Formats: sequence, structure tokens, C-alpha cells
Amino acid sequence: MGDVRVSHAELLRFAVAVFSTTGMSEADSKTVADVLLWANERGVDSHGVIRIPIYLKEIKDELYKPTGKPVIRQLLPATFQLDCNRAPGPVCMMQAAARAIELATTYGIGMGLVSNPTHLGALGRYAQWVAERGYAAMMFIAGLPLMSYHGAKGANSATSPIAVGIPAPGPEGAPLLLDMATGVASAGRIRQAALEGSMLPEGLAIDADGHPTTDPKKAATVLPLGGPKGSGLSLVFECLAGILAGSPIIVPRVAKGTTKAPIQNAMVMVFNVASFRAMDDYRRDVEDLVATVKDLPRRDGFDELLVPGERGDREVKRRRANGIPLPEGLYTELDKIATEYKVEPLKAL
Amino acid sequence: MGDVRVSHAELLRFAVAVFSTTGMSEADSKTVADVLLWANERGVDSHGVIRIPIYLKEIKDELYKPTGKPVIRQLLPATFQLDCNRAPGPVCMMQAAARAIELATTYGIGMGLVSNPTHLGALGRYAQWVAERGYAAMMFIAGLPLMSYHGAKGANSATSPIAVGIPAPGPEGAPLLLDMATGVASAGRIRQAALEGSMLPEGLAIDADGHPTTDPKKAATVLPLGGPKGSGLSLVFECLAGILAGSPIIVPRVAKGTTKAPIQNAMVMVFNVASFRAMDDYRRDVEDLVATVKDLPRRDGFDELLVPGERGDREVKRRRANGIPLPEGLYTELDKIATEYKVEPLKAL
Repeated sequence: MGDVRVSHAELLRFAVAVFSTTGMSEADSKTVADVLLWANERGVDSHGVIRIPIYLKEIKDELYKPTGKPVIRQLLPATFQLDCNRAPGPVCMMQAAARAIELATTYGIGMGLVSNPTHLGALGRYAQWVAERGYAAMMFIAGLPLMSYHGAKGANSATSPIAVGIPAPGPEGAPLLLDMATGVASAGRIRQAALEGSMLPEGLAIDADGHPTTDPKKAATVLPLGGPKGSGLSLVFECLAGILAGSPIIVPRVAKGTTKAPIQNAMVMVFNVASFRAMDDYRRDVEDLVATVKDLPRRDGFDELLVPGERGDREVKRRRANGIPLPEGLYTELDKIATEYKVEPLKAL
Repeated sequence: MGDVRVSHAELLRFAVAVFSTTGMSEADSKTVADVLLWANERGVDSHGVIRIPIYLKEIKDELYKPTGKPVIRQLLPATFQLDCNRAPGPVCMMQAAARAIELATTYGIGMGLVSNPTHLGALGRYAQWVAERGYAAMMFIAGLPLMSYHGAKGANSATSPIAVGIPAPGPEGAPLLLDMATGVASAGRIRQAALEGSMLPEGLAIDADGHPTTDPKKAATVLPLGGPKGSGLSLVFECLAGILAGSPIIVPRVAKGTTKAPIQNAMVMVFNVASFRAMDDYRRDVEDLVATVKDLPRRDGFDELLVPGERGDREVKRRRANGIPLPEGLYTELDKIATEYKVEPLKAL
């Protein structure tokens, strides 16, 4: 099957139109669509418009509240909690990021917990958004059990990502942006390999009995990054983002089999860089660091060295020029959605 | 060579006596000695009393100021910077941790940068200390270039650790404590294997030409945890802890060859758990999570599953009962120091 290429504007038009039919406000529909397209443009297609059918099903199942509004609870002065009650995840995260910037402006740092939203989308979106505004961001998610805890078999630990945005440009002009899972790979990597008919790299996955496998059809769960390190990070993220918000995921789902427990929680931290140093000096030192790294002597097999976010930034330029490639199966699925939800079908380039 | 066992009290007595001869105050000598012994008791001997000869040499070379006092600069209300000017690292970190707790008590979160101290010792010590006081901690270091950036050869990236302390008990009764390097292993792992005459695991190190090796005599640098993930974390820690404090390490040392640049910087964050939820509820949920993890079905070859900090907590109990083992070479070296610094020699058990 070939790919179908669609422009950013057309995909945005389509996603906003579809979400709007569910009762979601136009502003919120744009926020959700924006995060999906941000991921598609960066080549992180697992977090792109492939999620539209999933979100629509969750809305039908009343697990996703398209008209939900997160409620902010100011706690001690530099902190808050956003109680989301299954409101659209990206709407919650943008509100939390904006609020954390306000607090950081006054207090030097601002921190918020985002509890019980729907799927948050690509975490890097929010860290980049903060960095574009001249602040640094560190965010992490406490997510669903899709990984095996170090030494365990079965799905019992989350590949919870961490994202860090730095308000200084990488080589492509966008802020430096680290966005990584605490698993060797994200859980979607197995499904993707199965669809493509390719094998998995060694050390990525185990089967249901806990034996290492490179066959995506036998693979049941991904392994944690660096064994106890990845599962340790995942566990403390559950303690800091989930349990701290009174919104645990692992115990209700793994120990009690509750499928209605939260699917994600997040911690958002924003640092007021300019309250520590002059921004120009900060930017210059980060730019020097980037230049130093790019210029390091390379190992055989490496044509160049990349800094965090650089690969994605390049893909954005390519996909803005050439359109966003969608697998034919997904394009067909979105076409059926157009019919079902009575919106104008997605036009290919 | 066999090991010599020494009691905690005797090692503490010795370390405090030695540091005191350099002009370091008794209180500061105790703080530095405490951090070294904390590491020894947990089995992290690379960060234990093996550092005494190194610190003494740095003091002679005027790279370590035994009478130095860190200066605190309050910035916006929830943040501060501790300018250390090579004052003893553990003294700086304990002061930063205490100040961050004070700020978190008022603001919900407290954050401080610790710039240009001497060696900080085991980062986990400070995260545990915070957690013992009912707060959660996240700390990371921006350290010396001892690792190869992903795709690079040579020493140009730090194995900068991150530590997270959770104010709820693990199975041994001490707070949950994650303390991990962003390298596959710490840089000291190569030296240790060379001393022991053992081979390194695959994927841990490369030689000076950038080729993978398991021979500790050929190994030049450790590799980053998970390739771009570990070197990405290390890079953003340099941006957040080092450059934010106006105290960069990588560019001056790697690009400019300056050996007098800072050796470490740290970011310390403390979270006021009780301002988010009732402590009892928080503790109960973490305890449930720990119990769930301990009880997961195991893969072949795993007799049990460990949570962050558990292995170290057990070693503490063993070493408190049986004494701390020191390699004979180190014991001899400390004996020579006793003579040189005119302190009572270290008595073995």
C-alpha cells in the first residue's frame, strides 16, 4: 500500500470539522487537531491523526468528554492542580502550560498536575510551546501499563515520557526539545512493526511468557529503557504525577483490573530562565553547546550528530513542503469517518 | 587482595579527623564524611571513602576550598541560587535541600541551582534526606565530560545523574529512592573492571577510536543510556543546571580545553506533597504501588523484583551489621594519610 499525501491545512480542516460534530467547541477542536498535526509533521505518526478514530470511539463510549472543561485548583502559590475529568487532553495541557508560565513569571518556577484528562497527545508539543515563549519546561506523564517492569512479564508499567524544552534554538531554529519514552521504545512500536512486516531490534520486546523476541507477532510488551532505570523512572512518575494528584493508574488497572481508572496524568514544570540570567547570555551559551556537540569527532557509521529535537524539526520542513504522508488504510478510514460524521472528505494533494 | 572491614563509627571518626586537619569546620567535615559513608553503606563504593585521597589532593591543588561557604542568592520567591565557589559539595547540597524545603513549605515547590561546588558525592543522599522529611525531591547534576555523546567518540558528555526521593517507604522502610546515571553505567565502572580484571558487558563502552569493546584496558568512555536518550538527558541537564546558573562545563572543557571550569552543578527541586493530598493517603497509595510491583509475575531468571532504592537499603542493613568492606589497597592508602595528616589510624574490625 502506498501513502497518500495531504496538506497540513487540509488535515487541520478535516480534524477540526470532525471533532466539532461531537459538540467540542471550535477552539478546543483546533487545540486537539493542532497537537495531532504537530506530531504528524515531526514524523511521530503514532501520535498524529491515526488517533482520530480512537478518540471518536472513546467519545461514543463516554470515556472522552468533548465538551468537558478542566477545573483549575490553585494550591500553594507556585502550584496548582488541573482536575480534568476526561476533558480533551490537549486543552488541559495547554491550559496547564499557560498557567505554569504565569506562576513562573511571579515565583521563578511554576508547577501543575494535570489529573485524569483524555489522551494528552505528544508531550513535546507543550514543552516546545513553553520554550517558544522564553521559558524552560520539564514535563512528564504517568501513563497506562503497556510495558513490563524490569524483571517482570506482562503489561504492568508505563512507557511514561519525559519532555524538556529549552528556550534557545537548535540547528533548525526551533527550541531544543527532548521528548523520550522511559521504554526502549513506545508501546506502538510493536504494532507498527507487525503492520510493516518487519522484525523488531533485539532487546526491545518480550513475549507473553517473558522471553525475548524480535518477532512483532509474538511480542507482547516493550522493555524498560536500561532495565531498572526505565522502570524506575516510570514508577516515580506514577508517584509524582499520578499518586500526588490522587489519580493512580497502575494499582487500579494492574492489581484491581479496573478499566475505568485514569489513562494519563502529567506534571508540568516551567522555569523562568530570565530570572536566573540574562536571556541573551543563556541563549549564547546553549548555542555554543549545540555547536560544540555538532562538531564532535564521530564514530564510524555516523554521518552527523543530532541534538534533541533536530530530527523532528527537519521532518517538519520536509512535510510542510511535501505534505503529510498517510498510509492508504488510514486515509480510507478517515474517508469513512467523513461519511459517518457528515463532513467534507479529506482531499489528497 | 582481601577486604578489610571497618565500622561506620570508626570510618566516620577517621574521615572527620582528616578533613578537620585541612581547616574544614567540624560541622562541615561531618557533612562531607556523612555523604561518603552513606554511599559506602549502600554499596556505592565509588562515591565513598575512596574519594578521601582525591579530595585531599584537590585541597592541596586549591581546587577544593575546605573553609569555603556557599552564598545563597534568593531569586524570584520560589527559587534561589547557591554560589559555591568550590566550597565542599555536600555542605552546599544540604544547604540547598534545606532551603528548597523551606520554599516548598510556603510555595508548594522550591527550586535552587547549586553552582560550582566541589564534588557533590552521591546525589541520592540529598533526595533521601528530603523524602525523610515528608517532601518529594527531584535533583539532577550537570557533570564532567566522561561519556561519549551518542554517535561521537571521546569524552564529551556527562553521565549526569538524576535522583528522585518519594516520601513513602519501600520494602526496607526507607523512602523510595531512584538514583541513576544517564550513562549505561557510571564512568568509574571501566576503572573498576580493570582493577578487578573482569570484562565489561557488551554495549557499555567504546575505545578511543569509537569502536565497541568489552576490554576495560581498551575502553575509553562509557556510552549513553539508550543512545540519544541518555545523551539527550545529559545535554538538557547541562542547559538546566549548568548554563542556567551561568556555570557551563561542557563548552569550556571540551571546546576550549579549560581545566579550571566547574566540575559539577546541580538543580534541586522539592515538592510539598501534603499541599496536594493528605500524607496518609499519599503514603498508602505508594505502598499499594510497591506491593503491586513486588507481586508481579516474574520472568525466568528473576528471583524477585526490586523497587528503586531497595537493593541499597538492604546493603545498609548488612554493612551496619558486618562493617564496611574496604579493599586492602584503599585501607593502606588511608593508613598513609593517617600518618601524613597526623590523625589516629583507621582501626579494622
